[in-house]
Amino acid sequence: MKIDNIEYRTIWFDKVNQLVKIIDQTKLPHLFIIKDLYTVKDVINAIKTMEVRGAPLIGGTAAYGVVLAAKENNDHNFIKKSSEELIRSRPTAINLKWAVDRLMKKISGIDSNEILDTALNEAKEICDEDEKSCENIGLNGLKIIEEIYNKKKSAVNILTHCNAGWLATINWGTATSPIYHAYKKGIPVHVWVDETRPRNQGANLTSYELNEEGIKNTIITDNAGGILMQRGEVDMCIVGTDRTLSTGDVCNKIGTYLKALAAYDNNVPFYVALPSSTIDWNIKNFKDIPIEERPSEELSYIDGLDEKGKLKKILIYPKKSKSMNLAFDITPAKYVTGLITEKGICEASSEALKKMFKK
Amino acid sequence: MKIDNIEYRTIWFDKVNQLVKIIDQTKLPHLFIIKDLYTVKDVINAIKTMEVRGAPLIGGTAAYGVVLAAKENNDHNFIKKSSEELIRSRPTAINLKWAVDRLMKKISGIDSNEILDTALNEAKEICDEDEKSCENIGLNGLKIIEEIYNKKKSAVNILTHCNAGWLATINWGTATSPIYHAYKKGIPVHVWVDETRPRNQGANLTSYELNEEGIKNTIITDNAGGILMQRGEVDMCIVGTDRTLSTGDVCNKIGTYLKALAAYDNNVPFYVALPSSTIDWNIKNFKDIPIEERPSEELSYIDGLDEKGKLKKILIYPKKSKSMNLAFDITPAKYVTGLITEKGICEASSEALKKMFKK
Repeated sequence: MKIDNIEYRTIWFDKVNQLVKIIDQTKLPHLFIIKDLYTVKDVINAIKTMEVRGAPLIGGTAAYGVVLAAKENNDHNFIKKSSEELIRSRPTAINLKWAVDRLMKKISGIDSNEILDTALNEAKEICDEDEKSCENIGLNGLKIIEEIYNKKKSAVNILTHCNAGWLATINWGTATSPIYHAYKKGIPVHVWVDETRPRNQGANLTSYELNEEGIKNTIITDNAGGILMQRGEVDMCIVGTDRTLSTGDVCNKIGTYLKALAAYDNNVPFYVALPSSTIDWNIKNFKDIPIEERPSEELSYIDGLDEKGKLKKILIYPKKSKSMNLAFDITPAKYVTGLITEKGICEASSEALKKMFKK
Repeated sequence: MKIDNIEYRTIWFDKVNQLVKIIDQTKLPHLFIIKDLYTVKDVINAIKTMEVRGAPLIGGTAAYGVVLAAKENNDHNFIKKSSEELIRSRPTAINLKWAVDRLMKKISGIDSNEILDTALNEAKEICDEDEKSCENIGLNGLKIIEEIYNKKKSAVNILTHCNAGWLATINWGTATSPIYHAYKKGIPVHVWVDETRPRNQGANLTSYELNEEGIKNTIITDNAGGILMQRGEVDMCIVGTDRTLSTGDVCNKIGTYLKALAAYDNNVPFYVALPSSTIDWNIKNFKDIPIEERPSEELSYIDGLDEKGKLKKILIYPKKSKSMNLAFDITPAKYVTGLITEKGICEASSEALKKMFKK
């Protein structure tokens, strides 16, 4: 998608210099910086500090992490150790482990000299597949937006939480892909963007990327979705997911659950968009999902531009105060109207998921 | 209550200089500034810019606004015009109109020379009554906390939204009063403080005032209450209200509704603490409550301390982005476990409210 009218993907491999390029998402929207990753340590750091984030993009980046490990040292043991470190870099998004495991399986037992090329091809394939999945999610979700538009005959108001946009994936996004597809088809859309504290990925990334594509959007606080739904100003919600249980329960950015409850209470359809790589076929009880606790400074400090346009970090809490920073919550399947996947839309239930993915 | 170990009320009249003193709440927690209000215009400005906020304190301040109008010019017409301007300064909190109407009734028809003293006495009485109401709310709510403690035998975890603390009233607070009373009785309590975007009155005021009284508290994002309830880490919620309908529906700071939904979904008791002055006996349908829309800059800009400890305002949103700032939402009565009033605890229903207040 576009930034300043130039088409990008969120991650790509620079063959000439044998390095990985990413858009540093911690500096957006204030600075647009393309960053070079040379080693698997750079990749781990980029994932931990959230220079790259969003389950699908974390998966793609981790795949390139294995590539960079193989470039550094094509010894199987070294790569295995690196892959384990990669998996530990963030605990909740399932795609991370999924992508690393897929790479490791692919290079398992092959000749050391062939590892780098094989890994590179597989990482590219993961990224290409993700892009294709997101495109299909968009085409499937488009039908829902179209249906609302055909009834309503005026702009469709869609609420989203956090960033499940193209910046969270390789391209198109998950939750935003139906929106981009609707917009490209000429359907008028307006997006309510939850700012998504503490890191404000809604404001910093979703609103930013929608602006760059020319899609109307309004940032609201995370508190605001309820009253907007009470007033009938939300036609549907679409969010992403970091891990979808085979039961249909959805683990996504903290606060998602609260919007699902409000949607349920006000008869607003609540959809979750996901590539099937975010489905966890093993864990059955959502209480077993590890919920990441991140540094409390992500709450108490915030970045922005001062009156001279310089990037500043300021303390916004009382000095004596403690804070706590859980990154995800769980939306039980019963509050999810449907799952928009690359294969089609299905109910958030064990039976429907099994049927769609033939498990 | 205490700030830096000195006892304060949020507002008081300085007889010697014939002016009103308030704590400027827009500068907290970073700066503690006592501000002088000389005229009714100063009062209107203090209410509009939220130097004073919280329904009961807005009521008390507005009462002193009438006093300052009478000091400026003891002509009945001037005071009447001023009182109308006062009522328009903020639309949602019901106490504002209630307090001004009470003053205007008291001085109606009396000799011009007696207006100032009469108004001053009535304003003081409104403030004294509010303090007494809040104390009684505390004693009534204490019983609920005590009951939970007696069952649980460990610290009671209470979630609150925004600031319904002593800084929102004359003293004690509404939602915090039961907490202060429990603490003074030796019951271990811990408060989850929603930061409460966009103005962060939870972090800036509630956490600040709890710190100053020595009560354990942890600031969380507005998104976090749901997962904490899912995990069983919240024993009860207590919030304040800006306007309570006689039906039991509660209009309070935006985001309250989302916490009530989560509490309901997780069987966590959800209480609303209020002096009866916040009850609106006229409006029957919550859709008729005027919901204030405040400047969008309250979302896109934020204050805090830079690395040198200087107060800075920074822009936190993309420059091209639009934002929208509704200040309140509605929690339907069915999600409210009970109303903690100065007269006792009652169901959030028309019958129970009528019975308790003999209407």
